[in-house]
Amino acid sequence: MANGLPNPPAALLTAATARSLLDSVDAFLFDCDGVIWKGDELIEGVPETLDLLRNMGKKLVFVTNNSRKSRRQYSKKFKALGVEVAEEEIFTSSFAAAMFLKLNNFSPEKKVYVVGEDGILEELRLAGFEGFGGPEDGKKNILLEANFYFEHDKSVGAVIVGLDQYFNYYKMQYASLCIRENPGCLFIATNRDPTGHMTSTQEWPGAGTMVAAVSCSVQKEPIVVGKPSSFLMDFLLKSFNLETSRMCMVGDRLDTDILFGQNTGCKTLLVLSGVTTLPELQDGSNSIHPDHYTNSVYDLVGLLQQ
Amino acid sequence: MANGLPNPPAALLTAATARSLLDSVDAFLFDCDGVIWKGDELIEGVPETLDLLRNMGKKLVFVTNNSRKSRRQYSKKFKALGVEVAEEEIFTSSFAAAMFLKLNNFSPEKKVYVVGEDGILEELRLAGFEGFGGPEDGKKNILLEANFYFEHDKSVGAVIVGLDQYFNYYKMQYASLCIRENPGCLFIATNRDPTGHMTSTQEWPGAGTMVAAVSCSVQKEPIVVGKPSSFLMDFLLKSFNLETSRMCMVGDRLDTDILFGQNTGCKTLLVLSGVTTLPELQDGSNSIHPDHYTNSVYDLVGLLQQ
Repeated sequence: MANGLPNPPAALLTAATARSLLDSVDAFLFDCDGVIWKGDELIEGVPETLDLLRNMGKKLVFVTNNSRKSRRQYSKKFKALGVEVAEEEIFTSSFAAAMFLKLNNFSPEKKVYVVGEDGILEELRLAGFEGFGGPEDGKKNILLEANFYFEHDKSVGAVIVGLDQYFNYYKMQYASLCIRENPGCLFIATNRDPTGHMTSTQEWPGAGTMVAAVSCSVQKEPIVVGKPSSFLMDFLLKSFNLETSRMCMVGDRLDTDILFGQNTGCKTLLVLSGVTTLPELQDGSNSIHPDHYTNSVYDLVGLLQQ
Repeated sequence: MANGLPNPPAALLTAATARSLLDSVDAFLFDCDGVIWKGDELIEGVPETLDLLRNMGKKLVFVTNNSRKSRRQYSKKFKALGVEVAEEEIFTSSFAAAMFLKLNNFSPEKKVYVVGEDGILEELRLAGFEGFGGPEDGKKNILLEANFYFEHDKSVGAVIVGLDQYFNYYKMQYASLCIRENPGCLFIATNRDPTGHMTSTQEWPGAGTMVAAVSCSVQKEPIVVGKPSSFLMDFLLKSFNLETSRMCMVGDRLDTDILFGQNTGCKTLLVLSGVTTLPELQDGSNSIHPDHYTNSVYDLVGLLQQ
């Protein structure tokens, strides 16, 4: 879509197109959930595929909208699953949120209220900002009773909303009051994914559900820093001195991963190992067409060795 | 708007227009929050106004999108505030949700999952349906861990989402699984108000925020039974044998109360005792124009006695 023309329907990856894809890119951007793993289970053939690409001199970057962990925590998860990935190769939406504040000269004197989990709090801390809320506020209740007045901290200058399994009415009101009443308070969403494979067996409500609730309450749209927004890509390009025309985005979700790749001028490869099925990809109502599709990243190994 | 033409800008209610309004209607529909009370405080002059209208032979109906209480509980609240209102005169969105199931021949063999409070559960019980979830499930947690599998009841045939101060991730996933996986499961919203004066001192997130979260998770729009949907009005007209052209809707919110009145062909009176301010009403961006506006319902007493 980089040239403004609609992409033709996606083609199944073949030995010939796989080789030509490899020749035309220097870097692969991988989504994690549904591409590398499902919940806490590694998808088959991932270590072999990553090894092959590294041996061919390709730069690998791992991009996830899941904000529950920090980069350090994701690096640990990769290791536990038997894959060596450096912190610097990982871009999470929690990290993106902290970097957004940094690049926009957010004052370290101001606080950040977090509707989300530890990943966001840790990335804020590492970037020198004071965050609060998070899992701690998941234990707090309010009593919707006569004359109860809910106080909030007037020094909050940004609210970050991400996936939050401890989401509750208390946090929704806290976030709403900060956004509505603190002058200039930023409303940042890590991403708007409606669902995700938070466990390997089922789909769960994604960050998009918390964002929808807070956005409805304050009647305002957030700044989105994760996929498919271009903020994450711009930051990544600067960090690695890469060009999007020489990159391939590999993902399992059309409306975040593939759209993100296309919005930013990357080549795109959809894998069917996550949320998108072949009938969904080929359905007439789908307007997002990746350059190629294949069952899973492991297919690259087979196709490139033919 | 009953004739399809845009309404002219709202006119301040005067002694002459108040008298002509009274002559032209047989019934008054009152929104409660911001019109009759704010949180748990009665708005000044309400008992006198209701007495005057009753003495003039007008039928009074009280319509609220707040689903936290049942009709019986609201009747008690009126009494506690010193106003006699019969259960039969009260139409809540919790009652509307139960009546929607009844009128659509929902099988009493099926269960109803409730993201909401006691009002919905009580109205379901009175209508002969088995509801569960509600405040009880507000205490439940899930652990988003590897291989955790979240079970749900396959006999749930409807999910009702209303205002829920005990909203959490558990309920969001429970509701999502029922709507997504139980064939034909209905997704009903009591209303979509983004906020409400749940206490007299502050605005709080409304049912719209819970509806937005669940709707995002299942990627589906709900059936709305409260204002401004016409279901509640159709039901009310049948119950009282009334005609909308001889009714006046009195409310404090443009996008629910006034729109509801206009959608259904009522005359409309906006009071400024709730969420809408005069600058908001008169702002160029506002496209919802009530027939009349005044500060509060008590003005009727003064104007009609001039």
